[in-house]
Amino acid sequence: MSKAVFYHAGCPVCVDAEQTVLNYLDAAKVSVEVVHLGADRDRIPEAELAGVQSVPALLIDGNVYHINFGASLEDVKKG
Amino acid sequence: MSKAVFYHAGCPVCVDAEQTVLNYLDAAKVSVEVVHLGADRDRIPEAELAGVQSVPALLIDGNVYHINFGASLEDVKKG
Repeated sequence: MSKAVFYHAGCPVCVDAEQTVLNYLDAAKVSVEVVHLGADRDRIPEAELAGVQSVPALLIDGNVYHINFGASLEDVKKG
Repeated sequence: MSKAVFYHAGCPVCVDAEQTVLNYLDAAKVSVEVVHLGADRDRIPEAELAGVQSVPALLIDGNVYHINFGASLEDVKKG
């Protein structure tokens, strides 16, 4: 079982992508942790280390997939 | 069963994203058609109409999710 992390910041495009990702990923193959970086600001450094540059992003098997372009991490830090 | 289309253009980030998407999406919920826009140039207008602006992109339930930023459709047209 792989573990994935879906980083978002509550923006509309984030919520929309989150629903699709959680709906269609195979729960038998991967478990997804959802992290709201706007609320959980302590997780921002971890996200940056993993290579997250914008949200929404899906970290899976060590690879970061940036989905659309919602908000940069710099904007999340300011917000 | 939903139908999804994964548009790509053969770039390394496309191939990488394709493997992850196909590996982790739930085959019981969604069937994925993979379209190589570099080889299948006739599909470019359809992709544009669907809202695809860059590849790799996943079209699912009428929504386009641009994954990272591999290559713009303008570049694919030139290539």
